[in-house]
Amino acid sequence: MNKILKGMRVVEGSAFVAVPLAGMTLAQMGAEVIRFDRLEGGLDYGRWPLAPDGQSLFWAGLNKGKKSVAVNMRSREGRELISRIITAPGPDAGMFLTNLRVRGWMDYATLSKKRKDLVMVSLLGDREGRPQVDYTVNPAIGVPHMTGPEGHADPVASALPAWDLIAGNLAVSSLLAAERHRLRHGAGQEVVLTLKDVAAATMAHLGLVGDVHVNDNERAKSGNALYGAYGQDFVCACGGRVMVIGLTQRQWEGLVKATGTGDQMKLLAKRHNVDMSDEGVRWTLRHEITAILAPWFAERRIEDFAGDFNAMGLTWSVFRSTREAVREDPDFSEANPMFSMIEQPGIGRFPVPGHPAAFGSHGRVRPAPAPALGANTEEVLGDVARLSDTEISRLFDDGIVASPDHRKKSAA
Amino acid sequence: MNKILKGMRVVEGSAFVAVPLAGMTLAQMGAEVIRFDRLEGGLDYGRWPLAPDGQSLFWAGLNKGKKSVAVNMRSREGRELISRIITAPGPDAGMFLTNLRVRGWMDYATLSKKRKDLVMVSLLGDREGRPQVDYTVNPAIGVPHMTGPEGHADPVASALPAWDLIAGNLAVSSLLAAERHRLRHGAGQEVVLTLKDVAAATMAHLGLVGDVHVNDNERAKSGNALYGAYGQDFVCACGGRVMVIGLTQRQWEGLVKATGTGDQMKLLAKRHNVDMSDEGVRWTLRHEITAILAPWFAERRIEDFAGDFNAMGLTWSVFRSTREAVREDPDFSEANPMFSMIEQPGIGRFPVPGHPAAFGSHGRVRPAPAPALGANTEEVLGDVARLSDTEISRLFDDGIVASPDHRKKSAA
Repeated sequence: MNKILKGMRVVEGSAFVAVPLAGMTLAQMGAEVIRFDRLEGGLDYGRWPLAPDGQSLFWAGLNKGKKSVAVNMRSREGRELISRIITAPGPDAGMFLTNLRVRGWMDYATLSKKRKDLVMVSLLGDREGRPQVDYTVNPAIGVPHMTGPEGHADPVASALPAWDLIAGNLAVSSLLAAERHRLRHGAGQEVVLTLKDVAAATMAHLGLVGDVHVNDNERAKSGNALYGAYGQDFVCACGGRVMVIGLTQRQWEGLVKATGTGDQMKLLAKRHNVDMSDEGVRWTLRHEITAILAPWFAERRIEDFAGDFNAMGLTWSVFRSTREAVREDPDFSEANPMFSMIEQPGIGRFPVPGHPAAFGSHGRVRPAPAPALGANTEEVLGDVARLSDTEISRLFDDGIVASPDHRKKSAA
Repeated sequence: MNKILKGMRVVEGSAFVAVPLAGMTLAQMGAEVIRFDRLEGGLDYGRWPLAPDGQSLFWAGLNKGKKSVAVNMRSREGRELISRIITAPGPDAGMFLTNLRVRGWMDYATLSKKRKDLVMVSLLGDREGRPQVDYTVNPAIGVPHMTGPEGHADPVASALPAWDLIAGNLAVSSLLAAERHRLRHGAGQEVVLTLKDVAAATMAHLGLVGDVHVNDNERAKSGNALYGAYGQDFVCACGGRVMVIGLTQRQWEGLVKATGTGDQMKLLAKRHNVDMSDEGVRWTLRHEITAILAPWFAERRIEDFAGDFNAMGLTWSVFRSTREAVREDPDFSEANPMFSMIEQPGIGRFPVPGHPAAFGSHGRVRPAPAPALGANTEEVLGDVARLSDTEISRLFDDGIVASPDHRKKSAA
């Protein structure tokens, strides 16, 4: 195994989606990521979806390739152990990712006394220190108001925790930027992100804050239409639904050509005295464009035009449920080099993805399963915290730390 | 100005959301990001939303703080200039971010002949080389099937291009990881990401691929409910709508206490003979829990309980449209140190965010506006491509390159 961040060590204390994803992304690039948890598992140890035996598929998914240390954080000794692991020496160590809002022993001021060049990336809820999760940030910044069928009265929240996923990825790049700075200047630092700020900044990056200030605009729901140009879903004769895109001029011309609707589109443009090569015009006239295209799709099964659409290089796709996608789309199988069949102990064998990027220098690396809770406790106490075997045994005996083996023993 | 990636130079050739966002994120951490475009602007130069004079708020939002070079890419000389800018010497230069599918002169094999240690991050549509955009990837992986009101027949796509945003952030961390590798080992490389793989991997990370393989489960639409535990939206007496979260035990107990519904929840648990401290039980019983809580919210205005909810540390928020959020929420104003009032030439003055992370070593940096198309052509041709003034003048005269000044001149 030879991965791009090999040699880097990051300690993670986290729950939910964003920070576990950040740690896992680093682990999948080859960093040694040590996750610590309470003896009974963290806040998300039992999060749905679950496997039949009750183990969390969610937890397994977000903790792949990490090392796990289980520590009684209520004890002073347990807290000292964690500090020691976070601040352990090594030029490529001394990095800490967290969204646990633990004041005192786990904050930057305290930890950086033990290791001056510590890099700590903290994800908080909002800048006032209030707790926020994806499900509260998203309603507060307005995406549910612009999502859903045209004219639908109520806000519709997406099932995807997009802000968590974006924040987790920002935590990764922020940590790498801070480590780069440390390498050059020797100085560590705390980097603070909030979920709310990630969402607010992103909305602004997309032009939505300017749109309010400059145009006093309120973006309305527009169903599954692509905003600002042309893109629409259509139901076909087979009952399947496709999404077709006419965003760029090339995509638009391809779509018109493939459906043989050029004359009708010309008439439409003439009637409104507009130039359909202006993408905004396509957006404004989207309902009339859709009315022209809908019969074409309604008369055809997807298999009737799929080959032509692909041969013409159209940008389009078929709507599938996740179950259908996982069952039918080779991109979710080992046909895709990103996926490998992995045995996740206690859950089963299924295709598991590595890091989405293919790094030319290293090639694809087979993903590692998630650890059992505390699987690496003994190893990390020895190799990282540098405790003696005697000290480690005492910590297990005193119930300050646990591992799958030792837990069984003490329960017996 | 003193930012964490100061000194790094990245060249960007891009359109749409993901790669422009990646370049901008690097620019907002202090990197010199040089974006090149066709003389008339790239594919997204006129993307909605637009300012009243037709300038794109979208483009301005995603290109903040970059340098802009306008080049005629149809000419051999223009293409050579771009290669020269991408592969210009310098230990912290020689990095290229792109999603333009240009074969030949712009691919890694060709460019890396001019600079052996080039780091190039390419974002493609899918691994088969087919074009894909957020609007086609999302239907194909199933999120619209699980989004929307319970029982709603049709798929509902979110208005947020989440996959683009995630892919853009992955491009940033992939570039930083590859640069770190180059710093240590001297070797450049190509890093390839596809939008479809980013989506497929992320769905798997969340446990959704395992859920199909292990449980043969199809996640159904559940409206605005938080999946797997308790979280729900409620309409209040004032007509406002709130989202309240009972995900962790602490959040759940707080919600029950704040609404005084403890006795009813106990009866509900007794009736089903379940333990409500199991978050999955709260998910299974969510409709009955909601029926208990709904009257409480229906009888109260948001202002009646907002203070108490905050004092008790509940995790909750108010649904707002983006317009309401931008107008009413101080997090979208200069009260939030992430935002500064910026004059975006040709568009106006409005609050603009910097990078969401606060880096302890550098503090917040005021964001820079987006450049005018070609604003830095002359500077980059001199400082980066190292052309003489005479050569630069000829390129302008021959229409190989342009800048706002020179464009006016030649039009006159």
